[in-house]
Amino acid sequence: MKLISFSAAGRDGFGLVHATGVADLGARTDFSSLRALIASPDGLEAARRIAAQAPIDFALADIRYHIPVPDADKIICIGVNYADRNAEYKDGSAAPGYPSMFLRTRGSFTGHGEPLLLPPESPQFDYEGEIALVIGRGGRRIPQETALTHIFGLSVCNEGCVRDWMRHAKFNVTQGKNFEKSGSIGPWIVPVADAGSLDDLSLKTWVNDELRQEDTVRRMLFPFAYLISYISSFTELLPGDIIVTGTPTGSGARFDPPRYLVDGDVVRVDVPGIGTLENRVVRETVAAT
Amino acid sequence: MKLISFSAAGRDGFGLVHATGVADLGARTDFSSLRALIASPDGLEAARRIAAQAPIDFALADIRYHIPVPDADKIICIGVNYADRNAEYKDGSAAPGYPSMFLRTRGSFTGHGEPLLLPPESPQFDYEGEIALVIGRGGRRIPQETALTHIFGLSVCNEGCVRDWMRHAKFNVTQGKNFEKSGSIGPWIVPVADAGSLDDLSLKTWVNDELRQEDTVRRMLFPFAYLISYISSFTELLPGDIIVTGTPTGSGARFDPPRYLVDGDVVRVDVPGIGTLENRVVRETVAAT
Repeated sequence: MKLISFSAAGRDGFGLVHATGVADLGARTDFSSLRALIASPDGLEAARRIAAQAPIDFALADIRYHIPVPDADKIICIGVNYADRNAEYKDGSAAPGYPSMFLRTRGSFTGHGEPLLLPPESPQFDYEGEIALVIGRGGRRIPQETALTHIFGLSVCNEGCVRDWMRHAKFNVTQGKNFEKSGSIGPWIVPVADAGSLDDLSLKTWVNDELRQEDTVRRMLFPFAYLISYISSFTELLPGDIIVTGTPTGSGARFDPPRYLVDGDVVRVDVPGIGTLENRVVRETVAAT
Repeated sequence: MKLISFSAAGRDGFGLVHATGVADLGARTDFSSLRALIASPDGLEAARRIAAQAPIDFALADIRYHIPVPDADKIICIGVNYADRNAEYKDGSAAPGYPSMFLRTRGSFTGHGEPLLLPPESPQFDYEGEIALVIGRGGRRIPQETALTHIFGLSVCNEGCVRDWMRHAKFNVTQGKNFEKSGSIGPWIVPVADAGSLDDLSLKTWVNDELRQEDTVRRMLFPFAYLISYISSFTELLPGDIIVTGTPTGSGARFDPPRYLVDGDVVRVDVPGIGTLENRVVRETVAAT
């Protein structure tokens, strides 16, 4: 099953994608949003009943994808989480004892098929293919042993960023990680029960059909259960929260010379069993003020 | 005028505080939240009409304060923004060219009068008194010249944090800045027209009636107009967004030896003309799992 948030016919909604179209779960259930469905113990079962009937409320061509949980309380992104990534920093440091992480605004992401905005403020616009976890049951101080039971489903992320703005300040990558619509999440959420073995997930990122990133979650420094447990040691995870689990080697900044994104590039991130997220880079035009 | 978000009689609301009590703006207007009131061009005027009548829907003793905009889209915190703060790092670095900043979750803050949670995970719980800006009219790429017109009002913040968890990872202070209810914002928002000259704002932080921090916004490295303009260069500011503008010297970590907060300490941050934010530190008890 593939759950989406979308807009169609001039309004926002949420639903599911099946072989012949989109079923409108907002019209067919009492939930107010996909986040509310995720938060309800009955939400997934309600969606499965409708999925079985496969009603068509919209043609796939008539919707625009939003990020899967547009009203997520928080989006937490992990840095430096695949083998070889720490060495890429060439700073002589030992592998980190805890994961690096940062928050991103909801507005810094856009949906599948929507333009990725290349801002005129920088020539260093970059891609990062990642696997995203969507939290189902919330919690605080979740033990690793039960952490995976808190995952509602999985999605795909291009955690796009602006490299030079990540080094503007004394600390933190906030600015360069939060340009409006500089990343994307989607196309959908696949419930964890439909996702196959979480240990076998893998990821590829292409730019214009050239393979740039390829790795498997078995090489993660901090696996999913650790991340959920560690993050919930300081913050309360809520239903619909999104954890973006880190990118493998091969983003544009890691080439010598770097290979940053330019207007018209197409970035595609594929996680077999979950989905393929594709966005075209569009140079943002800014009116003089 | 003092605008608040609160809970009373078992439900959440928003309103205004006057000399004899609290007026319930949720019941007396069509706005769904203080954020919605802030976002409306008619919101402030509607609040002023009700303020003039000073109706009493609740006694002040019967409400609990929330953070002023509990559903703020984002809370952006500035680091190292008063003269002398960069030197405190003793890293030999020049003053930074751009402000450091990080995002905090809404859940990392609590309201005036509520307990500040000292987590068992750390002995390094610290305070940071700050002035908070609440955005009224949103925008992107806002010029400095008109930036101040985007401020709806001002509030007070204790940007409480957990020092050792700010250094857990290779980069970013995210973890130590986002412990649940480790900081506070409030008690209220004072609309900018009622706040006096923004150039004359000053700040004092006390711990148990001992003065620890004292400074004025004239010594800010990056003043309000610069912050709004710079932040909006990468992210779209929305009505109700909160910008926490940085702390002066004198937080607990800056003493030798450090003077961290302990159970029962009372932290008070006072910004004359805006308000006094006070919270007691309470050691969090965690059930064994």
